[in-house]
Amino acid sequence: MLINELPRYEILDEASMLELERGWRRIVSELGIDFLHDDAIAALEGAGQKVEGQLVKFDPDWILEQVAKAPREFDLQARNPANSIHIGGKHMAFGAVYGCPFVREGIERREATYADYENLIRLSQAFPQLDTPGGTICEPNDKPLDSRHLDMVYALLTLSDKPFMGSVTSGPNALDTLAMAELVFGRESLEETPAIISLINVNSSLRYDDRMLSALLEYARANQALVVTPFLLMGAMSPVSVAASLAQQVAEALAGIALVQTIRPGAPVVFGSFLSNTDMQSGSPSFGTPESAVGLLCTGQIARHYGLPFRGGGALTASQTVDAQAAYEAAMTLWPTFLAGTNFVMHSAGWLESGLVSCYEKFVVDVEMLRMLQHVFQPLQINEETLAYGAHQEVGQGGHFLGAVHTLERFRECFYRPLLSSTENYERWKKKGGKDAAARASDVWHKTLEEYEEPELDQGLKDELKAYVDRRRTELGD
Amino acid sequence: MLINELPRYEILDEASMLELERGWRRIVSELGIDFLHDDAIAALEGAGQKVEGQLVKFDPDWILEQVAKAPREFDLQARNPANSIHIGGKHMAFGAVYGCPFVREGIERREATYADYENLIRLSQAFPQLDTPGGTICEPNDKPLDSRHLDMVYALLTLSDKPFMGSVTSGPNALDTLAMAELVFGRESLEETPAIISLINVNSSLRYDDRMLSALLEYARANQALVVTPFLLMGAMSPVSVAASLAQQVAEALAGIALVQTIRPGAPVVFGSFLSNTDMQSGSPSFGTPESAVGLLCTGQIARHYGLPFRGGGALTASQTVDAQAAYEAAMTLWPTFLAGTNFVMHSAGWLESGLVSCYEKFVVDVEMLRMLQHVFQPLQINEETLAYGAHQEVGQGGHFLGAVHTLERFRECFYRPLLSSTENYERWKKKGGKDAAARASDVWHKTLEEYEEPELDQGLKDELKAYVDRRRTELGD
Repeated sequence: MLINELPRYEILDEASMLELERGWRRIVSELGIDFLHDDAIAALEGAGQKVEGQLVKFDPDWILEQVAKAPREFDLQARNPANSIHIGGKHMAFGAVYGCPFVREGIERREATYADYENLIRLSQAFPQLDTPGGTICEPNDKPLDSRHLDMVYALLTLSDKPFMGSVTSGPNALDTLAMAELVFGRESLEETPAIISLINVNSSLRYDDRMLSALLEYARANQALVVTPFLLMGAMSPVSVAASLAQQVAEALAGIALVQTIRPGAPVVFGSFLSNTDMQSGSPSFGTPESAVGLLCTGQIARHYGLPFRGGGALTASQTVDAQAAYEAAMTLWPTFLAGTNFVMHSAGWLESGLVSCYEKFVVDVEMLRMLQHVFQPLQINEETLAYGAHQEVGQGGHFLGAVHTLERFRECFYRPLLSSTENYERWKKKGGKDAAARASDVWHKTLEEYEEPELDQGLKDELKAYVDRRRTELGD
Repeated sequence: MLINELPRYEILDEASMLELERGWRRIVSELGIDFLHDDAIAALEGAGQKVEGQLVKFDPDWILEQVAKAPREFDLQARNPANSIHIGGKHMAFGAVYGCPFVREGIERREATYADYENLIRLSQAFPQLDTPGGTICEPNDKPLDSRHLDMVYALLTLSDKPFMGSVTSGPNALDTLAMAELVFGRESLEETPAIISLINVNSSLRYDDRMLSALLEYARANQALVVTPFLLMGAMSPVSVAASLAQQVAEALAGIALVQTIRPGAPVVFGSFLSNTDMQSGSPSFGTPESAVGLLCTGQIARHYGLPFRGGGALTASQTVDAQAAYEAAMTLWPTFLAGTNFVMHSAGWLESGLVSCYEKFVVDVEMLRMLQHVFQPLQINEETLAYGAHQEVGQGGHFLGAVHTLERFRECFYRPLLSSTENYERWKKKGGKDAAARASDVWHKTLEEYEEPELDQGLKDELKAYVDRRRTELGD
């Protein structure tokens, strides 16, 4: 995984940070936040917070005391220990797109299926730039709804040996995820080092809903990692102001994290951000906007201020197809993702059409961008060896370095080598079919799937997982 | 123009800066640099530098003494004073692509003509994101070679009233540029505040050629601005090492700038960078690479160290068409361009196919990226007003901000509004023709040209310029 040794890019001064502090404190204490789950209300009331029905008004200092119990960094174990990752500090972990009902393959856009789900896990497993397939890479619509989560966790545990994201569709589904992980990792090991990281979205504004809370509670009790994420499209779930939305984001995220710490002190959490804005002309969400870039840079600075690892960014775009817009909007999110040193990056590959679509070709485009940026965010070595004075002595004035000894010794490794990009001259490119990046990306993912090898898994364990799925599916009536 | 108030992103530590200092000093003093022009040699020898034929070995301290005579910042006047710009400090000026023999319009790629040249100036004039059309936006191949520069300067002075770049194809052509500018600005005003900025490329490695030097000498004598730019494709004109190429870049640029200051102390100069790398698999140049991004970030830091405004970056790509690659490579250059606070940005719009092609659609894609980034690099206001607590009070828990008073008062101005990007839902987008970004860009530039209005210019002055062109064309035998 990437350890980003370059500096963080921070754009807020101290006065701005103080204003934000004032902003979120006022929101949690004066307005309060809804928690639509009895256990959550009981826990918060028990800890001395002011409860009015489902509304909780917080003491901001109490929130910060709870937040301080969360680890600044933590490990997330993978089925293959070589793929275990570290969340926090200078580490950056990348996961595929999450939550899409549709897929796009070439010019075909259709409902996603379980076969797509499996393929997208295979691609996530194959590209070393991705540290996790994530969870709901796409929605397997051809599987029965009530037991779908079982098929998904089964695929995540068998087709990949990287860390994965758990089901959050309900508390019982979270328990299924935990049970299946327990078969693989063992209860003790799982308790000691989390293997599941799960996305808890706030039902913004200022509300945690019942389903998300029930999943949050189960994972927190089991000491598994949670990404607590205000879901903010400015103009819809938050005001049309980056400053106001950042204050709301802190209020919502820290309140949820405080709840986690009340349930299980020391449980691993990630300060989540999903912050973009509505296109005020069309009323549609937009992604890869200047506002989201700015919000992301600020979020990193804010999360570090509270000593928490954070999630944000990705390769977001509103584009309907794998065109220039898809790429520049993705880059408009990925650059600040790296500059902010984002610790956990969902939606790093495959996101298209405002997250409605998991796209195979976009997946490859995004992997290429990740590869490039992972190359940029490496420290530059400047020393006697890299100054390569001998090459200058050899070539002198007006010469050419292609044949220099220094070049010949290094030409294979000296520069980034593209996966997808073409530098061919026009005539050659034209002769080879004049394929644009999307067409070449299609070739790349097909080849990657062909070459994919399923990671080894003990057949007995595989059978146990299968038996669990079958048994629970029957119980769930699917 | 943009005043970039966000922080500079600097990635070199003090030890690295010292190593680079050692590196360039060794190059200029031990290896030396060729200057293929007698006047240049005479000037440098007269100033006490060691001359061996066309080779000059420098005292690095003398170089720095000359460099210190250059202004840290300067104004560049435009025919329309409202379009005058400032080069240096926090200011960033953007110009169109420069030097392309071909144009691309839709799927047609052809030799560029004077009609294209005029159209691309019109587009540069129309988009406020561009501070200058630059100079050779494309090569007007249908105009006779010897007098082509006259037609180009005429178009630059009549179709646009923004600052422009002068001809550097020879000393006499530079004198023609100066003479035409003098008709417009007057000799005294021109001497006092430069109106022409010209690109002097080093014939790297370690060589200034006769043509570039003869142009450099004329512009320096006339106190016009010069962008002294080592032309470095690592692996061809410099070693396959970013560190070595940066040292060479400093050596070449500072030596040329020292020459300018010897000719005319205090003449305005810009530390130029054009730093990318060869694709070691194809042998072709690549653009928008991780190495060029890193080199650009370092260049800003280095230029500031020597107290010079600097040029670098742009919307570079090796892509043959306006696809995802064209956009992510352009973004891979534009993001560091802004992060480095680049003072003068050539190739900001229209660059395609490693600079061989001026592309109309890419022009619009790049303008959209510039608009977005110019929005990102604005200071974020966080204060009681922007915290918008009233909106939170109004909407409360689980509500929607679209109808909030705060939103209704601000919805027109609150967010960036795209020129090109689409957020339409799939069905609507499909119904409207399913146009990708390149197809929509075609609509945008056609409409922009239709709406273009030629800036006012006194008819007498226009006739004088025309008469100059005609007279000189006859003298040149075209």
